[in-house]
Amino acid sequence: MTVTAAQGFTAAGIAAGIKANGNPDLALVVNNGPRLAAAGVFTSNRVKAAPVLWSEQVLRGSVVSAVVLNSGGANACTGPKGFQDTHATAEKVAAALNAHGPGGEHHAGEHNAGEIAVASTGLIGVLLPMDKLLPGIDTAVAALSADGGEDAAIAIKTTDTVHKTAAVTQDGWTVGGMAKGAGMLAPGLATMLVVLTTDADVDGATLDRALRSATRTTFDRVDSDGCMSTNDTVLLLASGASGRVPEYEAFAEAVRTVCDDLARQLIGDAEGASKDIRIEVVGALTEGDAVEVGRSIARNNLLKCAIHGEDPNWGRVLSAIGTTRAAFDPDRLNVAINGVWVCKNGSVGEDRDLVSMKDREVRITADLATGSESAVIWANDLTAEYVHENSAYSS
Amino acid sequence: MTVTAAQGFTAAGIAAGIKANGNPDLALVVNNGPRLAAAGVFTSNRVKAAPVLWSEQVLRGSVVSAVVLNSGGANACTGPKGFQDTHATAEKVAAALNAHGPGGEHHAGEHNAGEIAVASTGLIGVLLPMDKLLPGIDTAVAALSADGGEDAAIAIKTTDTVHKTAAVTQDGWTVGGMAKGAGMLAPGLATMLVVLTTDADVDGATLDRALRSATRTTFDRVDSDGCMSTNDTVLLLASGASGRVPEYEAFAEAVRTVCDDLARQLIGDAEGASKDIRIEVVGALTEGDAVEVGRSIARNNLLKCAIHGEDPNWGRVLSAIGTTRAAFDPDRLNVAINGVWVCKNGSVGEDRDLVSMKDREVRITADLATGSESAVIWANDLTAEYVHENSAYSS
Repeated sequence: MTVTAAQGFTAAGIAAGIKANGNPDLALVVNNGPRLAAAGVFTSNRVKAAPVLWSEQVLRGSVVSAVVLNSGGANACTGPKGFQDTHATAEKVAAALNAHGPGGEHHAGEHNAGEIAVASTGLIGVLLPMDKLLPGIDTAVAALSADGGEDAAIAIKTTDTVHKTAAVTQDGWTVGGMAKGAGMLAPGLATMLVVLTTDADVDGATLDRALRSATRTTFDRVDSDGCMSTNDTVLLLASGASGRVPEYEAFAEAVRTVCDDLARQLIGDAEGASKDIRIEVVGALTEGDAVEVGRSIARNNLLKCAIHGEDPNWGRVLSAIGTTRAAFDPDRLNVAINGVWVCKNGSVGEDRDLVSMKDREVRITADLATGSESAVIWANDLTAEYVHENSAYSS
Repeated sequence: MTVTAAQGFTAAGIAAGIKANGNPDLALVVNNGPRLAAAGVFTSNRVKAAPVLWSEQVLRGSVVSAVVLNSGGANACTGPKGFQDTHATAEKVAAALNAHGPGGEHHAGEHNAGEIAVASTGLIGVLLPMDKLLPGIDTAVAALSADGGEDAAIAIKTTDTVHKTAAVTQDGWTVGGMAKGAGMLAPGLATMLVVLTTDADVDGATLDRALRSATRTTFDRVDSDGCMSTNDTVLLLASGASGRVPEYEAFAEAVRTVCDDLARQLIGDAEGASKDIRIEVVGALTEGDAVEVGRSIARNNLLKCAIHGEDPNWGRVLSAIGTTRAAFDPDRLNVAINGVWVCKNGSVGEDRDLVSMKDREVRITADLATGSESAVIWANDLTAEYVHENSAYSS
């Protein structure tokens, strides 16, 4: 059910002392081959963390032999020193893995830093404690195991209350993965920290195509709090260890299923949230219109508060739609909340007292009545707990 | 200090029973001339309330003899019936004023509905109780007085805790005004309900020019909660009663001063807010870039929570800047909080512990280090009280 569900991977998660509270904070995922194919998508925030800048370069080669991830510090907005620290981390991982012996019998070559991806999460604007992180890498390498995926998923948590893993197996090959993310959760291209692995025998270009296709309709359609991270990273590594070469469609669907599962887990564990909101925009002229409208609804603080209060305040949905550039006629808009069409033709529809909002999941359907395209965006409500958690995060 | 500070205007504010709690909910402002010049700006939300659609038509003629405003219901998303109700309201005001006698000795002509502006505020998606509103108009007409501006300002309050008025007098002429607004406070063009009056002898085109110039850098740069209203209306009426014809620049500056004063009062009374945040973006290539960056910072929920917690979490400022299309180099960004440059060249700057955030007003300066343009956006923090107030508003 995680990054070691696929053959050819070992992983570890340990406490290096980066977090003051002593919780696990360093994860390592190693691809033991025979293939070392990889693809990645990263935040579209123009302020990018040092590990994102580093890993983007690594992924240009479509070869990744290991991923090192730390929680307890984002290493974002840390200047040249922060980038040097990321570089040093990759060098240390390569050296430790080489000292430990090759990652597996299929991996004859030595590890080198240019094939080590790095990901970090935590507070922005603080340098990482390298005196703790670097020795932690030795500890993590010594702990590597084919059962280490769970520990790795635990070590990348920040404000997550649970660790997130998923896997799909079919026809002798597997796609598995892990994710972290609970706040600053509104990806522009990819999101959060996610590592996916597969033992299917797939090349880098195919991985890239399947990954971009999957993230576009899963992680990219999560908008918990409207805040785009500086550190979003999604990696997909293939070991080829199953010896199976899947059909592209079946493989892409498996990647999509794992991404969808992890994305849904992220929403379910969002900071302070009491509701998961599924916003489906239908009747749009284009898919882009549907996404723009869905995201505008997802980011409307007044609506998020109303949903927290179990108040089917559909006027706030219309006021959010009205701020977009999507094609629609205000007098033809329809809105349903949990299946009750409380707004018809831009005006009062069915009785709002028919809407029950007791369950954690709330479904909003916005019908633009203009075309036949649609999209689903997932969001959360806005709560006093979110305010509390995020007013004290860095203190 | 309000809409009756200028000569030539009478006003009233009464309780018509639109609000269930019996508070004042109907305001009337009458221009007794000799001039009946007017200008208006309205929400750019594409979902517009019936009174906005009505008043936009009225203002095309640049003549307004009276403005009727109600709280207790926005009359937005109410379909054809809602528009008929607005029309009936204007007709009733004209008839009641004509029955009452001409508004003043200078106003020989009869009132007609096409010169009556209507504004509404309150819950979206509910029809107004016309059986209470229409008789209330008779009561308001009977209560009209040259001292009625204060009552009018009180009657347009919704979640406002205080009523908002302002006035500037110079060279024998006055610009005064009133405003309401505490939530759904992020204008796209104008904002909230605002009525400004002047006894200067100014024509409609000049009023329009001065009003658009003023709102562009005052109400349009308020972004309390990122939610654009369906009902935003700002009107400026001129009676000419002072007989003075001011220089354009002096007049425009007076209008801007009154708008700025009222806009600042709106931020100071925003729902649940504990901080007023002045975001100044400097070093921008264009003013548009400065506004886009300022608004992105203003709408970042994580930053708004941090400021509530008096936490100088500048990383959240950078993550917000990074989502914009403005011209900047991430490695040259500088951010100050209350004068302390906590971020220099995109990285760690002065010690964040030097920042004191005890006062209600918090100043953020974001230097894009690219050009010489700037803009100021006003925002509020995000609090548990905001969540509470808006999770129970329509129930």
